[in-house]
Amino acid sequence: MPLPSPPSDLPLTRDSVQKAHALISSQIHRTPVITSKTLNLFASTPRSTPLEGIYNARSVTDEDAARPRIRLHFKCENLQRGGAFKIRGATHALKHLTPLQASKGVITHSSGNHAQALAIASSSHNPPIPCTVIMPSISTPSKIAATKGYGANVVFSGSTAPEREAKVLEEIEKTGATLVPPYDHPWILLGQGTVALELTEQVEKLDAIIAPCGGGGLLSGIATACSGTGIKVFGAEPRKDGANDCQRGLKRGKRVEEVKTLTIADGLRTPTGLVNYGIIEEKVEGVYSVTEWEILQATRLVLERLKVVVEPSAVVGLAVVLFDEGFRKRVEEEAGEGGWDIGIVFSGGNTTVEMLAGVFAREEEFKAQQEELLRDFE
Amino acid sequence: MPLPSPPSDLPLTRDSVQKAHALISSQIHRTPVITSKTLNLFASTPRSTPLEGIYNARSVTDEDAARPRIRLHFKCENLQRGGAFKIRGATHALKHLTPLQASKGVITHSSGNHAQALAIASSSHNPPIPCTVIMPSISTPSKIAATKGYGANVVFSGSTAPEREAKVLEEIEKTGATLVPPYDHPWILLGQGTVALELTEQVEKLDAIIAPCGGGGLLSGIATACSGTGIKVFGAEPRKDGANDCQRGLKRGKRVEEVKTLTIADGLRTPTGLVNYGIIEEKVEGVYSVTEWEILQATRLVLERLKVVVEPSAVVGLAVVLFDEGFRKRVEEEAGEGGWDIGIVFSGGNTTVEMLAGVFAREEEFKAQQEELLRDFE
Repeated sequence: MPLPSPPSDLPLTRDSVQKAHALISSQIHRTPVITSKTLNLFASTPRSTPLEGIYNARSVTDEDAARPRIRLHFKCENLQRGGAFKIRGATHALKHLTPLQASKGVITHSSGNHAQALAIASSSHNPPIPCTVIMPSISTPSKIAATKGYGANVVFSGSTAPEREAKVLEEIEKTGATLVPPYDHPWILLGQGTVALELTEQVEKLDAIIAPCGGGGLLSGIATACSGTGIKVFGAEPRKDGANDCQRGLKRGKRVEEVKTLTIADGLRTPTGLVNYGIIEEKVEGVYSVTEWEILQATRLVLERLKVVVEPSAVVGLAVVLFDEGFRKRVEEEAGEGGWDIGIVFSGGNTTVEMLAGVFAREEEFKAQQEELLRDFE
Repeated sequence: MPLPSPPSDLPLTRDSVQKAHALISSQIHRTPVITSKTLNLFASTPRSTPLEGIYNARSVTDEDAARPRIRLHFKCENLQRGGAFKIRGATHALKHLTPLQASKGVITHSSGNHAQALAIASSSHNPPIPCTVIMPSISTPSKIAATKGYGANVVFSGSTAPEREAKVLEEIEKTGATLVPPYDHPWILLGQGTVALELTEQVEKLDAIIAPCGGGGLLSGIATACSGTGIKVFGAEPRKDGANDCQRGLKRGKRVEEVKTLTIADGLRTPTGLVNYGIIEEKVEGVYSVTEWEILQATRLVLERLKVVVEPSAVVGLAVVLFDEGFRKRVEEEAGEGGWDIGIVFSGGNTTVEMLAGVFAREEEFKAQQEELLRDFE
């Protein structure tokens, strides 16, 4: 069974996000917002050369470099239940099942943060809802163990998309379970948007929010939550192998439907969903993209300076703020002397020591690519 | 100049720690206390075999395994200014300089967290106090840059202890600066003890606190802060190459004065200071020690589950709670059905991605040593 559609007249507005928040707030963490004088200083310092490392001196400055004034507010969804914002949308979707649907359970085939979120949301629903997660049989044992640990029934499939989808249909046939999609659904995006409601309550005066865009559930939810508030919403994507599908779609005026990328921001490898793309097109001020090297630099800063653990996908927004001269010029021009207070959503922190060591072992490779990219620009 | 001695009748009591807190509280962060149901569950689950990995199933349980009930409260000094608790003692020491002494500046030769803490404390003192840090010329450039970044005057020396001390004396001769020691001084330990004051305010009912013991400033300060409260204080050390000098000293009834160890808990390689040892001997309930493998497992749990960045030295207390059957039996016996609420001090988070990758690359080596250790016990 597909997840039931909302009433056709459901307004995708801040008010609806507020209703979603009232439904889910007892089952999610109100995650902390942290700040850092050091990162504010970095963000507000003109960059000398695009290749300059974050820790290097910045005394020699390009005359043309943007001079934005930026104060950052990090919303730590990496400290959310299940280690990512995904619990918000999953919990919200479950609230709209009928008792009969709930009794037959839910199912998904994500192998990432959504599956764990759905497992947690299902087991903490009252009464608990049976949850099946289809996972490729080659998944890492720790991930399988974690998903089972959250109370899900794990069913194995082949690794290709068709194999996984066939297994999902087979299970639905057997049990009548409802398929809860990872991002492209109104109930999901309204749930994800609650992160922005909290952020606007936690920070006195917010000028903008920047959030990662993979399937677009988080970004479209935030844009929905902020519509009418005057807070500008921006999206951030990895650029590698065309992973910036949303940015490219907006540029050409048509959604990009397929993406094949191996960016280290592995939560952002999917194309933006149809429903979400429409909202982003209408309500988001701009989508920016960053390189692997820039993502890595931002990850290092968060780990070593803020001392919280993030997955690389979580810091693309920070990478835009630190490295994208287009975005930085925009802040300088629109904000002027007063500068901007920018909310940055750290979307998740589900990684391992080995995964982090693996991506940082590639730092020189990414730096070389960066140099190449910059040469190509000249 | 050595740091002035406190009045000879200064009582090392909770009241004096409270006075220290009043002096420094505007210059330090009140760091958060975090909890984790998952880690409570791990800590409260009997261990099946001593070599069992943290993430493995625990269905087969040794009949004799301890069955403590433990609720953990993590005091995040890794999120403190300068990334460690050291700012507390350094800030407090500066409050007791005369104006003349302050005008001549302070000096230290630590290359670790204390140097950075003293630099920060000096520059945020009102008025700022000149701060000189003697560092071996072979120190990593990032560490030198960070210390300078905090406002210190960095002077280079040779790498051996005599070379560094000679350079310190030379500088003191020139400037009349006051030497602020990293741990073995009443002003320092009273400052470090303020961490326990906050912890007892932040957690409603605390039965015990466990803290790392290197030079012993933190542990003796906490024991001083808790004296008379009924809260039991425990110390934790690495065991490698006899790094458990405090534990060994207490066992034989005489302080161990020299230690040579390369434990990954590199903040805990020093022997316990003289003043601190006396307080620990009198007021601490027990000191426990853990292996490199156990420290690594605890570090992984904190990074991957709590999602905060800690240096290996910071988690020896957690490692004791998870792995030391002697400690666990003690909790079971003394706490009974009600269990214990245990405060664990995460002492610092100053590490880099490369340092973490480096220690986790040695996991198999540490595991083999662990197996050997366990064989030797049998």
